[in-house]
Amino acid sequence: MISNSGNFSKNYAEPELIVLGAGPGDPELITLKGYRLLQQADVILYDNLANQQLLELTKPSCLKVYVGKRPYERYASQDEINGLIKKYAFEYGSVIRLKGGDPFIFGRGYEEIMYARSQGIRTTFVPGITSMQASGFEDIPLTHRAISEGVWMVTGTKKDGTLSADLRLAMQSNATVAIYMGMKQLPVITDTYIKENQGDTPAAIIQHASLPQQKSIKGLIKDMPALAEEHQLTYPSIIIIGQVVNLNSLL
Amino acid sequence: MISNSGNFSKNYAEPELIVLGAGPGDPELITLKGYRLLQQADVILYDNLANQQLLELTKPSCLKVYVGKRPYERYASQDEINGLIKKYAFEYGSVIRLKGGDPFIFGRGYEEIMYARSQGIRTTFVPGITSMQASGFEDIPLTHRAISEGVWMVTGTKKDGTLSADLRLAMQSNATVAIYMGMKQLPVITDTYIKENQGDTPAAIIQHASLPQQKSIKGLIKDMPALAEEHQLTYPSIIIIGQVVNLNSLL
Repeated sequence: MISNSGNFSKNYAEPELIVLGAGPGDPELITLKGYRLLQQADVILYDNLANQQLLELTKPSCLKVYVGKRPYERYASQDEINGLIKKYAFEYGSVIRLKGGDPFIFGRGYEEIMYARSQGIRTTFVPGITSMQASGFEDIPLTHRAISEGVWMVTGTKKDGTLSADLRLAMQSNATVAIYMGMKQLPVITDTYIKENQGDTPAAIIQHASLPQQKSIKGLIKDMPALAEEHQLTYPSIIIIGQVVNLNSLL
Repeated sequence: MISNSGNFSKNYAEPELIVLGAGPGDPELITLKGYRLLQQADVILYDNLANQQLLELTKPSCLKVYVGKRPYERYASQDEINGLIKKYAFEYGSVIRLKGGDPFIFGRGYEEIMYARSQGIRTTFVPGITSMQASGFEDIPLTHRAISEGVWMVTGTKKDGTLSADLRLAMQSNATVAIYMGMKQLPVITDTYIKENQGDTPAAIIQHASLPQQKSIKGLIKDMPALAEEHQLTYPSIIIIGQVVNLNSLL
């Protein structure tokens, strides 16, 4: 009873939300810290972008709750997810929100952190490998001395419609461009490069990066929509544009 | 003897270089894959940016070779490192090159990959959490919906002196700017923002991100050189510039 009481006090006095990055897909690419937290977890809220093999690391008693949002669709609303965070944090003392990639890079993790704090829930952040980093498995470094000395990460889902403007800025640098959730915008992306006379810039699209079913295409950005259709690449994919895509041809 | 012969054949027929990201500092932020590879390693080449606590994970027989290059200084030349890669890959069959952060983000990892392949050594890449991702520990998400929908990563050591030009481009977007190895360029960075009338942009400098001795300052970019001096922040540090730095003040 004393032990139960202690446990009760711990759970209810200081509920916790752990926003945890699952990495790009391969379960071995989660951090050691994330791995250990999953093994101890009592409740996990997970979605499609986190590899569900990670759920197998948990204790048998761990409650695993699907709150999936597929790209371009919506299953559980953010309000519903927030409600579950609050419910389970207070009920179990600690809840893990497992998110694909890194929760603070296009992952909306900080929105959940802000919500949790507003409800008196303390928060812990654990970063994750973000999907562009898996381009290394396709022999594409994100930077390379004297070739690309920067990386511009941008999302295809920008709310204010300024994706093309950002791309025109990035083109004026030698930065590698990494576009997340950009497959629906692929024709717009391609047109933007062509209009700036940069249609011959090397580009790659990598789908299911780091997973066994990973597939990719490489070519010129102007040819990407046709190549993507030919090879049936859809989402989730990362688009990489820049001279680093061609480095391996120098070997 | 048969076992020795098998081993001999394995080692000499197919030598391997594993370019492995150690993450930003906290040894718990290495990937599970990296953790397992370190436990099996026979030889590791490491430098200052990788946390040396990671070396304690290895077998007692593992050979650990320091090839450190401190920021702005040089101890082992890249030619010497390449020589050691070749020597140990052929001698032991496999060598791990442990690098701080992610080897393909300002890590020059692909240069070592190219060298190894030119010598008939096969290569394996394992990504790592890159240091800007540790800004989450200072309550700074790299993106946040409608506030910052992109991240521009750039290095303060650009060979062609175009750091300021890149910053002027980034300022025209709402992208978060993450500057690696930028502390020596801090006055230049600040001046660039002031000249574009953006000196009031929120900024943070985080030294030793993710380590127990992590320290940071937050303020306006125009005040950063004075704040860095006052609080004695030097390298290794990451500089983050953008509205995301101020998000926690909304809580």
